[in-house]
Amino acid sequence: MSLAREFALIARHFRPLAAAVPGALSLTDDAALLDPPEGRTLVLAADAMVEGVHFLPDDPPETIGRKLLRVNLSDLAAMGAAPLGYLLTTALPKSIDDGWLASFARGLAADQKVFECGLFGGDTVATPGPLALSLTILGSVAPGRALTRAGGRVGDEVWVSGTIGDGALGLLALTGRLPDLAEADREFLAERYRLPRPRVILGQRLAGLATACLDISDGLVQDLGHLAHASGCAAEIEAAALPLSSSAAAVLERDPALLATCLAGGDDYELVFSAPADAAERVEKAGMIAGVPVTRIGRLVAGEGVRVLAPDGGVIPLERAGWSHFG
Amino acid sequence: MSLAREFALIARHFRPLAAAVPGALSLTDDAALLDPPEGRTLVLAADAMVEGVHFLPDDPPETIGRKLLRVNLSDLAAMGAAPLGYLLTTALPKSIDDGWLASFARGLAADQKVFECGLFGGDTVATPGPLALSLTILGSVAPGRALTRAGGRVGDEVWVSGTIGDGALGLLALTGRLPDLAEADREFLAERYRLPRPRVILGQRLAGLATACLDISDGLVQDLGHLAHASGCAAEIEAAALPLSSSAAAVLERDPALLATCLAGGDDYELVFSAPADAAERVEKAGMIAGVPVTRIGRLVAGEGVRVLAPDGGVIPLERAGWSHFG
Repeated sequence: MSLAREFALIARHFRPLAAAVPGALSLTDDAALLDPPEGRTLVLAADAMVEGVHFLPDDPPETIGRKLLRVNLSDLAAMGAAPLGYLLTTALPKSIDDGWLASFARGLAADQKVFECGLFGGDTVATPGPLALSLTILGSVAPGRALTRAGGRVGDEVWVSGTIGDGALGLLALTGRLPDLAEADREFLAERYRLPRPRVILGQRLAGLATACLDISDGLVQDLGHLAHASGCAAEIEAAALPLSSSAAAVLERDPALLATCLAGGDDYELVFSAPADAAERVEKAGMIAGVPVTRIGRLVAGEGVRVLAPDGGVIPLERAGWSHFG
Repeated sequence: MSLAREFALIARHFRPLAAAVPGALSLTDDAALLDPPEGRTLVLAADAMVEGVHFLPDDPPETIGRKLLRVNLSDLAAMGAAPLGYLLTTALPKSIDDGWLASFARGLAADQKVFECGLFGGDTVATPGPLALSLTILGSVAPGRALTRAGGRVGDEVWVSGTIGDGALGLLALTGRLPDLAEADREFLAERYRLPRPRVILGQRLAGLATACLDISDGLVQDLGHLAHASGCAAEIEAAALPLSSSAAAVLERDPALLATCLAGGDDYELVFSAPADAAERVEKAGMIAGVPVTRIGRLVAGEGVRVLAPDGGVIPLERAGWSHFG
């Protein structure tokens, strides 16, 4: 990429994303300026995505940037933070043309409106390899109110937001491993894989209410395991309590063994959190205000690890603890 | 990369880099927390580097992470900001082993001490392509004191820090295009290419003194052109005034045509800035305090563009305006 092309790409596709951020200096300076909101703690997260590893080469360009932004927003949600803005670096192979970038930026622009954040800055470089993206997000939270993974206590109830397993089933659907699926279910699950729904409003509502929280990126069992470990206890969840979308339910009806995929698959980007039993009503209310269902799926108990209980009280063995980035 | 390997890599190599940053939460949570320094404006920049594009495949791993960190620190320096810390994402090919990562992290650890900053967080993913790194840096500056590219005025003098051209000549030396070079000169220039010296202290000293500033990443002429353009004027510099290292001088003595490489080559990461003529003494003093020579090389004049003047007053034609990431 010539410098002239780099500057033209930035001006055409990325500058408009920074238009509402005065401190971004139209992306023409060495760095961006940000006066942080007074009396708030900043929350910082970064995630990278590589073509063929974290998204499919034929995923629509509109969704690729949005997915990365949403994955990062999900990290903010898990801390109970409100978004401020983001920095984005893109390593572009030669195959990426102007039309692709226009779609990519259009997706980001749409999400900036939904999640009320803008582009602070970044870098655009060439790569001889696959498309590689990296995004750093900044958010803020009231001091001392950030949700972490530690803080859960024995006796707390375990909750999840939304529905579990859609992302992992979406990947199966997109890679031809669910051939008998109805078209509407395929579309719903594919969309859930491509466009996570970060629970940013819910996360903020849970700050000060949940005792521990994280977002499910590596699979419910694995991520709940992190929460339990950091909180010094074990977790027990009931398979029958798992909130499933109707599409996921349709898949499981045909192939009940895919319950393991729902439990251990990645890409949910729902929140899993613990809260004292007497906070249940407030948790329900937080979900209602945020417009996302919340479901009690189990509890924190003494010990370590995560047990998934069948309706008969037996422990369901899980083939794998989590999702690997290499599938 | 399995999740188990990802977690092990992070724990072994990256967690120690975050040890002195309490808000990094040992890299075990979804995001990091930062209480921003009170009454300061945050300064944010991000840069990406790809193997084979921004560094050579056989560059020592110790220098690769440091180069990326230093390139970002150079952006902070150009804004007059003090470093706070950084987030790092790494996309690792399978060929990267534990020894490589240990060296990579050792280099970063050394630079964290020098530049007084720590790791806030990041992400480690696998890639089927070349090593790709992305780093976001956070710094701070007193409100209203950030140096930008705009602000230069006709009559201001143009200055540079350090010596110019070493980075570009270092790349030539490392790629076998300066065969007759003395070994000591080769080593010096290669080091300058691999390890930029971000002028972080000087940048902070120039805040409130320089009228415009940026760091030279794409070549002196190109980057000074940005400063001139943003400031609404032209720049005139004298080739004879260009500060050269003794190694660069030795190269130019043998091949005077390489002056164009020094003027237009990239990877200097020195500061180029403008200051009123009556501030010259204070600029000299800022250089002395920062321990880096500063040299007056020209002035801002009415018009647009950058002219390089030969000792006889004639304009030296430049083959190319800047350095392309594809060489």
